[in-house]
Amino acid sequence: MIKTDMLIIGAGPTGLFTVFEAGLLKLKTHLIDALPQPGGQCSEIYPKKPIYDIPAFPEILAGKLVDNLMEQIKPFEPGFTLGERAETLDKLDDGSFVVTTNKGTQHNAPVVVIAGGLGSFEPRKPPISNIVNFEDTGVAYMIKDPEVYRDKRVVIAGGGDSALDWAIFLTDVASEVTLIHRRDEFRGALDSVEKAAELAKLGKIKLVTKAEVKELHGKEHLEAVILKHTDKEKEDTYLEVDHFIPLFGLSPKLGPIGDWGLEIEKNAIKVNNAKDYQTNIPGVYAIGDVNTYEGKLKLILSGFHEAAVMCQFAYQQINPGKRYVMKYTTVGGVEGFDGSKKEAKKEVVQSIA
Amino acid sequence: MIKTDMLIIGAGPTGLFTVFEAGLLKLKTHLIDALPQPGGQCSEIYPKKPIYDIPAFPEILAGKLVDNLMEQIKPFEPGFTLGERAETLDKLDDGSFVVTTNKGTQHNAPVVVIAGGLGSFEPRKPPISNIVNFEDTGVAYMIKDPEVYRDKRVVIAGGGDSALDWAIFLTDVASEVTLIHRRDEFRGALDSVEKAAELAKLGKIKLVTKAEVKELHGKEHLEAVILKHTDKEKEDTYLEVDHFIPLFGLSPKLGPIGDWGLEIEKNAIKVNNAKDYQTNIPGVYAIGDVNTYEGKLKLILSGFHEAAVMCQFAYQQINPGKRYVMKYTTVGGVEGFDGSKKEAKKEVVQSIA
Ligand SMILES: Cc1cc2nc3c(=O)[nH]c(=O)nc-3n(C[C@H](O)[C@H](O)[C@H](O)COP(=O)(O)OP(=O)(O)OC[C@H]3O[C@@H](n4cnc5c(N)ncnc54)[C@H](O)[C@@H]3O)c2cc1C
Ligand SMILES: Cc1cc2nc3c(=O)[nH]c(=O)nc-3n(C[C@H](O)[C@H](O)[C@H](O)COP(=O)(O)OP(=O)(O)OC[C@H]3O[C@@H](n4cnc5c(N)ncnc54)[C@H](O)[C@@H]3O)c2cc1C
Repeated sequence: MIKTDMLIIGAGPTGLFTVFEAGLLKLKTHLIDALPQPGGQCSEIYPKKPIYDIPAFPEILAGKLVDNLMEQIKPFEPGFTLGERAETLDKLDDGSFVVTTNKGTQHNAPVVVIAGGLGSFEPRKPPISNIVNFEDTGVAYMIKDPEVYRDKRVVIAGGGDSALDWAIFLTDVASEVTLIHRRDEFRGALDSVEKAAELAKLGKIKLVTKAEVKELHGKEHLEAVILKHTDKEKEDTYLEVDHFIPLFGLSPKLGPIGDWGLEIEKNAIKVNNAKDYQTNIPGVYAIGDVNTYEGKLKLILSGFHEAAVMCQFAYQQINPGKRYVMKYTTVGGVEGFDGSKKEAKKEVVQSIA
Repeated sequence: MIKTDMLIIGAGPTGLFTVFEAGLLKLKTHLIDALPQPGGQCSEIYPKKPIYDIPAFPEILAGKLVDNLMEQIKPFEPGFTLGERAETLDKLDDGSFVVTTNKGTQHNAPVVVIAGGLGSFEPRKPPISNIVNFEDTGVAYMIKDPEVYRDKRVVIAGGGDSALDWAIFLTDVASEVTLIHRRDEFRGALDSVEKAAELAKLGKIKLVTKAEVKELHGKEHLEAVILKHTDKEKEDTYLEVDHFIPLFGLSPKLGPIGDWGLEIEKNAIKVNNAKDYQTNIPGVYAIGDVNTYEGKLKLILSGFHEAAVMCQFAYQQINPGKRYVMKYTTVGGVEGFDGSKKEAKKEVVQSIA
């Protein structure tokens, strides 16, 4: 059982910044996310696109925003359970909560913060009848650990940035990379498209367009796929492979959180925005895109504010009776759990004559 | 009469970011600040100190934060009335407001946003009986336009960063710079203290320590000051000068805003934080450090969120009946009033075989 002070469901920008605000109050945090990487929508949907309304950044790429947040929270050493979906929420007799993931990982904390955004990102799966049989034995819808593909034969399907970028990345890892797309054209950031084209020319990516994987074969593990071509004249291709990774995009679904007894409105969780962003279950808070109230804006900067305010109230719940006096970071500095300390340079007092 | 859509009192970080959020909604803005430069507390109190809790900036100097905000809002061409204090608020028959400054400048807008922080920064004045007679005729407590001192003889008094930094700056402008401090030691950022020491050695700053300006003389305009020395043995110094600038720090006072009929609590303005950050006067909003509600945090990131939410509601007040559908900046881009346009690079759609 993983134990922490504040359990955060969702490692999007809101969840990440919560680690920082909690850390200032000396609260330990642990994050759960269905995605294999932190950053939520910013990482999954538009990492290479610029955002213009993050305060004091006239322009910042979404991926860079996530990198910066990861650097900012590093001193507070958050725990991560990635690639797992929070499935159930149970209350123990001592008032604390247990959150269990779809993989059975259990987490215990006195306070649960739901920063689940638009929901947990769930893959769009290709319609292949026996595909579920190969999940975890050759088929994956997202890449958690690229080392799994070291010296293996990999087939990636898809026509967007994820398919392009992972095909490019895996050329250095896998023994063979095949990229399959049902159309002739790819859609993605210019540099990804160009890089993939270059690797295709060098034969490092085997490109098969106007084709789809229609059958999976294998005993314990995936052994081969069968490709059907749009061009009816062309015969089906039989391809020996170790891994098949369809990257058709992930779409967010509120999912299991909807069954936790929380008050739901417009597919989001109602909270008390006049005070602490608490839900109808005391001890459970909801911040960022996942919550709703009158005038709610699904903006990154709102999640940041909600995180800061929520932490002050959660602190009192975790440390009843203890008073926390807020200090400006400029004045009090930032003391990490890793022993690091950042602080403003002291003013000098000096005679200059 | 200056006319605008949204009149913002206070050009601290909150007021500045409001220009951006209003601009996204195509609302024109104008800022009034008692200080000669934008940035509020960040510029006036700690421009050279790092802040650690601005989201996605592991560390940023307060002065740099203000520079970034100024760059971010540039496309929206805000108007500025600087170095003047908003003194009165009047409501016209058409429902719009007129705000008049201590210098008589009048501003008219359908919506007033108070982003006044801890209040308007007011100088600490030295106790010299006739000093008021020379205000605007040789005595100034802050520097609005350094060109005023071109080829003049200037006496600066003070022992902190402002006194040091302006003394340094004016060596390139004034014909003569004297820096007077009642103690022997200066307190400031290391680089300021060192630079001032160097200029003092070169004779570019005339340094007089353990002394205070006690008398001012002149007819229409300041002509001379008399210095008294702590060392009783030392005779008073008579110094011919054109300008005397005591920089003893500015301290914020809620000031005239307190008399506008707004509901005040803990020296701040009560607002409806469950909705739109409106005050008890419809059409007048208060955001950032200047407002108060349960759980209020006087943090920069809170002002940013409050600005974004407030603008959506103010928009409806300014454009009754019109619906505004929020678009992500990443998706819709940013169209400046100056004709500039920022937008994400389009994805390419390309065959790569
Ligand atoms: C194309 C696009 C452009 C955008 N542009 C802008 C912009 O310009 N400015 C702006 O401010 N905002 C923009 N946004 C919105 C912005 O991305 C969101 O406001 C922000 O990502 C919300 O952050 P969050 O942390 O609250 O949620 P999310 O980023 O959605 O992260 C939530 C995370 O929680 C996880 N999760 C949810 N439920 C579970 C569960 N049960 N178990 C495990 N994990 C779970 C999800 O997998 C996800 O990773 C844009 C969004 C998109 C899609
Ligand atoms: C030493 C120090 C360290 C800090 N460290 C941090 C930190 O680490 N993190 C953090 O988030 N915050 C920190 N803060 C607080 C932060 O600076 C404030 O939250 C922030 O400046 C508030 O912004 P604002 O725009 O609301 O108000 P302000 O910055 O106070 O700006 C308000 C402006 O309104 C003007 N004004 C007021 N009334 C009038 C009037 N009647 N007419 C004309 N002008 C008027 C004032 O002159 C002022 O310029 C710190 C503050 C200090 C002093």
